[in-house]
Amino acid sequence: MKQRTDEEHNAKMKKVQAAQAKKIATKTVEKGLIIVHTGPGKGKTSAALGMAVRAIGHGMKVGIVQFVKGAMATGEKAVFDRFPDLVEFKPMGEGFTWDTQDRARDIAVAREAWEEVKRMIADPEYKMVIADELNIVLRYDYLPTEEVLEALAAKPEMKHVIITGRNAPQALIDAADLVTEMAQVKHPFREQNVKAQAGIEF
Amino acid sequence: MKQRTDEEHNAKMKKVQAAQAKKIATKTVEKGLIIVHTGPGKGKTSAALGMAVRAIGHGMKVGIVQFVKGAMATGEKAVFDRFPDLVEFKPMGEGFTWDTQDRARDIAVAREAWEEVKRMIADPEYKMVIADELNIVLRYDYLPTEEVLEALAAKPEMKHVIITGRNAPQALIDAADLVTEMAQVKHPFREQNVKAQAGIEF
Repeated sequence: MKQRTDEEHNAKMKKVQAAQAKKIATKTVEKGLIIVHTGPGKGKTSAALGMAVRAIGHGMKVGIVQFVKGAMATGEKAVFDRFPDLVEFKPMGEGFTWDTQDRARDIAVAREAWEEVKRMIADPEYKMVIADELNIVLRYDYLPTEEVLEALAAKPEMKHVIITGRNAPQALIDAADLVTEMAQVKHPFREQNVKAQAGIEF
Repeated sequence: MKQRTDEEHNAKMKKVQAAQAKKIATKTVEKGLIIVHTGPGKGKTSAALGMAVRAIGHGMKVGIVQFVKGAMATGEKAVFDRFPDLVEFKPMGEGFTWDTQDRARDIAVAREAWEEVKRMIADPEYKMVIADELNIVLRYDYLPTEEVLEALAAKPEMKHVIITGRNAPQALIDAADLVTEMAQVKHPFREQNVKAQAGIEF
């Protein structure tokens, strides 16, 4: 960035501020958002957990259902369990689908987890609902995407719903308000043989 | 995905599991990671906060310095303040650079925040250090990137350092272990005039 004098800088910043103020003035809508975190990169689940933290901090009740990670003790569970009035945290999966090797059981587990999500979406007490790794379940056809779209279409207007997992179906992206694709620029698993570590992956 | 019989599915999953197990067996390295969240999409800060939650849940001490957002009350602050033994949370910025309109002061604030980050990186007590929006400060040349690279090169081996903000300098990306680019697929600010909301943006 070319070096400006302080005066030039401050004049420029005045202009940027005015432009920002004008832009923000047009942003008046408040609504519950359908948010999708997808893509092959990292940060899909952790960004959802970060939003849960923000919501809890504002006294909003948050429901979290994990479709895959149920079998392992995670750091997030230890923290969220400290806020029993504000967070209902349900790790309901039984592990990766290649670990269970039982499709009928995977489907039953996915169905059970989805019923929890549906309940939280319908219940006005929850201001934010996170369906973690739901996209994986949809990708394997363990749950019809149409059913998810229906529940989202019927959600209370102010409720935020966050859905994570790679390979989000296009119909879900179309229905969402905010979609972020996490792209992998560099990943230590691949390049340096680094294993999954506490505080990062779980 | 083409429909398989349960038997075909289970046989296929056995193979996937074996391949996964083989892959995981090569991942034996444990090390503190230099992690960068960049790109124009959302989720850069919230993914860092989610990692902080995981680390805290494992009893790891986390230091968080926010270079931009100091002026506003955030949900994350309310939550992290509940873990005084495990989190040192320092919102040190004074707002966006176009709000302060005072480059000398912005530089002084960035310098002060960076000294905190350096202290946390050097102090073995902290297992994870988050420099939130540091990339913005680097982008404006408020702090020399070389100084950041030096501190990272000298960090204790097992310490995780997470740096967020769009426009990460290439030299920082080169030095990092794990880089995720958050790409914006759909953003309600732009398309629907939705304003920044509690639980999502702060």
